[in-house]
Amino acid sequence: MQTVTRPVDNGVNVTALLGAREALAQAPAAARFTWRASCDWVNGTHSRATIEGYHGLGEEQRHKTRFTFDADHPEVFASEDHGPTPVEYVLVGLAGCLTAGIAAVAQNRQIQLRSVTATLEGDMDIQGILGMDGDVRNGFDAIRVSFEIDADATREEIEALVAQSQKRSAVYDALTNPTNVSVRVQ
Amino acid sequence: MQTVTRPVDNGVNVTALLGAREALAQAPAAARFTWRASCDWVNGTHSRATIEGYHGLGEEQRHKTRFTFDADHPEVFASEDHGPTPVEYVLVGLAGCLTAGIAAVAQNRQIQLRSVTATLEGDMDIQGILGMDGDVRNGFDAIRVSFEIDADATREEIEALVAQSQKRSAVYDALTNPTNVSVRVQ
Repeated sequence: MQTVTRPVDNGVNVTALLGAREALAQAPAAARFTWRASCDWVNGTHSRATIEGYHGLGEEQRHKTRFTFDADHPEVFASEDHGPTPVEYVLVGLAGCLTAGIAAVAQNRQIQLRSVTATLEGDMDIQGILGMDGDVRNGFDAIRVSFEIDADATREEIEALVAQSQKRSAVYDALTNPTNVSVRVQ
Repeated sequence: MQTVTRPVDNGVNVTALLGAREALAQAPAAARFTWRASCDWVNGTHSRATIEGYHGLGEEQRHKTRFTFDADHPEVFASEDHGPTPVEYVLVGLAGCLTAGIAAVAQNRQIQLRSVTATLEGDMDIQGILGMDGDVRNGFDAIRVSFEIDADATREEIEALVAQSQKRSAVYDALTNPTNVSVRVQ
């Protein structure tokens, strides 16, 4: 009897990532990235953001595509709902960050993924943003992320994948730890 | 000589917002919102998130449209760049939140806006997410937001608008203060 073993392929080029890590160890200044967005007010609470260029590896970089995103408030806030709320964009970022991490870690650990689905919930008491109660914060009270993962791995291995992704996630860090945000008028 | 005064109109229904504030003061449980996202892994670092339903005002709500968003890593990370990076989505959220707040506060203060443009930069040393240096954080080192605003107002009034928007911004709070994020496997 013959066993055919297919190589694990989650579509992540781990060899390139490990190579990048070695290259950056020699040139740590290249690891300094600056991500950018610009945003134009449209009307009411509706705005449109653009993502295109960023700085990294010591030079200006550009996404293959120029991405634009509408944000708005929903009709229950007397707005026109031209896009998700700003806080929902934060959930999109968290979901994408943890999911990409799971795929990368799984590749590195030779675990074949079949499907990964995340469900996110962010609780918010809008008495905060409405300025009704100074004891209520503006942001999320709590965020819950739940993963359903089908993979060639034990439950323990899957839990370890998720834990490692969380440990290295940029957006998870940005939400669970404070960041200095300066806001100024030109 | 006759002077015709046009009413200030930034497209924000401040009367409705103030009414909501009064109504919620009587029924604070209705102010508890839960925002949701779901996300499916596509391949590699590419995932697709969906935003549609949320909970608020005591019941299930739904955006007018189902929004989907691709997130990915760029080619310089050996990925395919099918969408912005997860951290860029966070910048989109911050931009939309501060911009909507400026329009709402301007309306409440009877200041006519003509244009509002935000430019955002988020610095990140990717030695963090690559696990190269335990002293380097995964998230942003710092975020800078710069507003260019054309409005019927003095520079001081414009600076006060921006400051008030920042004070009531959900995403600004989410980034500058820690939030509990729980991540589990179903």
